[in-house]
Amino acid sequence: MQEIDQQFKDHFKAVLVRPQMGENIGASARALLNCGFENLDLINPRDGWPDPKAEAMGSGAWQKMPPPGIFNAVKDSIQGCRHVYATTARSRDIQKNVLTGREAAEDIAERLSGGQKIAVLFGAERTGLTNDETALAHSLITIPLNQEFSSLNLAQSVLLIAYDIRMALLTRREEPLSQNAIIPAPYQDIDLLLSRLEEELEKAGFFRSKDLKPKTIHNLKSMILRAEMTEQEIRTFHGIISALISKKAQ
Amino acid sequence: MQEIDQQFKDHFKAVLVRPQMGENIGASARALLNCGFENLDLINPRDGWPDPKAEAMGSGAWQKMPPPGIFNAVKDSIQGCRHVYATTARSRDIQKNVLTGREAAEDIAERLSGGQKIAVLFGAERTGLTNDETALAHSLITIPLNQEFSSLNLAQSVLLIAYDIRMALLTRREEPLSQNAIIPAPYQDIDLLLSRLEEELEKAGFFRSKDLKPKTIHNLKSMILRAEMTEQEIRTFHGIISALISKKAQ
Repeated sequence: MQEIDQQFKDHFKAVLVRPQMGENIGASARALLNCGFENLDLINPRDGWPDPKAEAMGSGAWQKMPPPGIFNAVKDSIQGCRHVYATTARSRDIQKNVLTGREAAEDIAERLSGGQKIAVLFGAERTGLTNDETALAHSLITIPLNQEFSSLNLAQSVLLIAYDIRMALLTRREEPLSQNAIIPAPYQDIDLLLSRLEEELEKAGFFRSKDLKPKTIHNLKSMILRAEMTEQEIRTFHGIISALISKKAQ
Repeated sequence: MQEIDQQFKDHFKAVLVRPQMGENIGASARALLNCGFENLDLINPRDGWPDPKAEAMGSGAWQKMPPPGIFNAVKDSIQGCRHVYATTARSRDIQKNVLTGREAAEDIAERLSGGQKIAVLFGAERTGLTNDETALAHSLITIPLNQEFSSLNLAQSVLLIAYDIRMALLTRREEPLSQNAIIPAPYQDIDLLLSRLEEELEKAGFFRSKDLKPKTIHNLKSMILRAEMTEQEIRTFHGIISALISKKAQ
């Protein structure tokens, strides 16, 4: 039986955001490894890390995976990623590409084949991802389950998404890579651009209503993420900001 | 969002064979309903039925499904089914069609669209299906997971298979049904034919070695199941047996 290329395993990570139950962390590690993947990051796990319950439930899997990355913020986990996906059960009032698990898997397989690093975010058990966390993602994933009974536990969500990606990679037709394939900039570049833009807009009095500011920033983020700018384009964008500021200063 | 036709839900059942843990039965019910299906049969559940642990774990799901069918033998559960699939982690030394989850899902979607009733068998947690139980199936399903870490719990297996079938049904291209589509005979007809054949072969001294008899019968079953005979063909086969017997008797 075929197995997934090590390069693809290296370039994929699942990120559990504020997971509450150690059992679910362990079961998620197992689900990931069942599908041949091995990179798991934990953002502020409720019971800290290491967590004996996670170790017990994941037993057997942890020994075959690198230790999970532990971070305080999603932003720190996704540095270097070229595309970030957020899983969500609810539809959001934010302008983002929404994909089914299957569609996302095809997209991820294509990006992995093009050498891109990608991350999939999974929210906390009850609350899911916050709007701020979702805003970090380029695309959303919603698994089209029975709408009258759609609640999955965390590890089951990880399993279904990882399974779809595995199958997409294993069944992917070998297509020649386009010479013109656009490689989006790594996440930190976008992040810096967004921070700078926000700062400059703040100074310029762009945010008239303090209440509306978070929503406005989310929309800006979504717009910029959707553009999937290359590193060169990001430099250009910085140039534009610099130019506009200096013009205004004159 | 689309939902699966009620007719397809009615014609699909998951069959848990000798499940040991009530928790897994409850979680399997949830997984099935997550994917829009609602028929679950239990063959000799270890802790009997009703089982408070299964009820607690499946809570919310049981109220939206018909009560599970409880049987003493797989054979009794699959009466009326036109095609039976057995899930298996191991490769078997038996001549049967082996499908991946995806391939099985396509096949099942096609059969459901043609009005056929189908069943998928899931074995006990540790031991899986016995050879006798596997021999009852027309086709085997093996999910192509990471071979170095492939063990799934029962409910996760149910989830992946049901999810693949759901997606196959939801994404299925609407193709006109062939006028010549072959409808295989219901399970009980095959069963009767096999019993009769075995009996007649026994009388005829066909089974020289008592040790080899079970294996020989499994191979016969596999052959006959693979043929997917129609009701008419089964009647013809009975006619052949009768003819051969009477000839011998002469």
